[in-house]
Amino acid sequence: MASYLITGTSRGLGLELVSQLAARPVEDVRLIIATARNTEAGALQTLATEHKHRIELLSLDVTSQESISAAVKQVETLLGGKGLDVLVNNAGVCTYITGAIDQMNNLDDVFRSNVTSVHMMTTSFIPLLREGDSKTVVNLSTTVGTFGMQDYFAAVPCPAYKITKAALNMLTVQYAQDYKKEGFTIIALTPGWLRTDLGGEYADLSVRQGATGSLEIIERARKDRSMTGKLWNVKVEGYENPEPGKQVYDGGNPVW
Amino acid sequence: MASYLITGTSRGLGLELVSQLAARPVEDVRLIIATARNTEAGALQTLATEHKHRIELLSLDVTSQESISAAVKQVETLLGGKGLDVLVNNAGVCTYITGAIDQMNNLDDVFRSNVTSVHMMTTSFIPLLREGDSKTVVNLSTTVGTFGMQDYFAAVPCPAYKITKAALNMLTVQYAQDYKKEGFTIIALTPGWLRTDLGGEYADLSVRQGATGSLEIIERARKDRSMTGKLWNVKVEGYENPEPGKQVYDGGNPVW
Repeated sequence: MASYLITGTSRGLGLELVSQLAARPVEDVRLIIATARNTEAGALQTLATEHKHRIELLSLDVTSQESISAAVKQVETLLGGKGLDVLVNNAGVCTYITGAIDQMNNLDDVFRSNVTSVHMMTTSFIPLLREGDSKTVVNLSTTVGTFGMQDYFAAVPCPAYKITKAALNMLTVQYAQDYKKEGFTIIALTPGWLRTDLGGEYADLSVRQGATGSLEIIERARKDRSMTGKLWNVKVEGYENPEPGKQVYDGGNPVW
Repeated sequence: MASYLITGTSRGLGLELVSQLAARPVEDVRLIIATARNTEAGALQTLATEHKHRIELLSLDVTSQESISAAVKQVETLLGGKGLDVLVNNAGVCTYITGAIDQMNNLDDVFRSNVTSVHMMTTSFIPLLREGDSKTVVNLSTTVGTFGMQDYFAAVPCPAYKITKAALNMLTVQYAQDYKKEGFTIIALTPGWLRTDLGGEYADLSVRQGATGSLEIIERARKDRSMTGKLWNVKVEGYENPEPGKQVYDGGNPVW
């Protein structure tokens, strides 16, 4: 009977997370609050219509504290006196450049979208999460932003994404440290390289595989507080011991 | 006969770097361009007067592209047709909070001061550095911003500093990758925990020790291109194999 709030659900991984959660029994998943800057997207609307009262759509701009504060009040009403169990900070942006890093001209904006947004969301929803049973916060990250994989991803021209996801990982560690004593589990999660608008058509995994693997991690994190403060990889069959030059998806902890 | 541009020189490590460089023979150090938001600081003025024409003061706000662009023109004039050899991005801020991370209310500003500033400075000075002999960029960082030391520094309440220095480290890796083929050496450098306004009175090392160790790394980096893309630690006698609970200063590469 858990409640979830997921950001960035109009497409890609966020949309698929909502879809897979909604397919679970109501005894497991009581309420999914699906937020997006624009909730008019067709697929999201269809899902919400199919799962009336279990999926609630909320218009939210995660880069605006004003929008977040308004959302907190609406979520409080939707929860009807109960706490929020799981917050999934999924919204984020990735932009590619042509040429060297001197062409990167949007670093402050990408930082606000990928890091400050997660800070504002998490801090704003901590009071409702405190009243929940799971006290779980999941920040969608990527091995593209890990120091351990920088040689591997050297040719991927998205420096602002790499820089801000490294910062998001460090933000996650800070939150995990500060809220451990209250029983929170706060993790970073890399869903794999997915065939979404962000990942492109040549990516390793379908969005369905990425969402299934992500939900496995999220459900484990709800029960296992020792997972807090770490970066978690999805586990995908056939990718636990990949051939050289392929990414591993083994359910473990990539080097930061 | 090298030329150096150092930011944030009105006090602390930046001021001491200028002082120690100025004490070297002119055959080694031709020109030190010392920048600060406010160059009126007494100690910096005194130094510049003692070393006329070898230390040049430049008023510069590293968070402003307009100010940086104006500085590039002034530096070009000061260099008199030669290139710039070494850029030391030393300016940065560290603010402490009381309580948990929900009290952090200046993340965007700290990011601009500690990361976007370094991006703007480096990109703006790449053309002059390209004409120099050393092609060396040094970004002042800290083990406080490394994932490897987060347990050690858990009680140090400066989350925005930790988050933005992790981002700065990742920025450094991106620059090193993109400019390696042109022969640039671009490194992150941790000067140690210093008794400056930023580090406080209980820190391990004097600012003199930190600057001496930093200049050793900087001079090595000017000659050894294989150092690029890494985080370098200062080497301080007595701190190579410290007792447990003390930091190590061994001249090596801390885990990111």
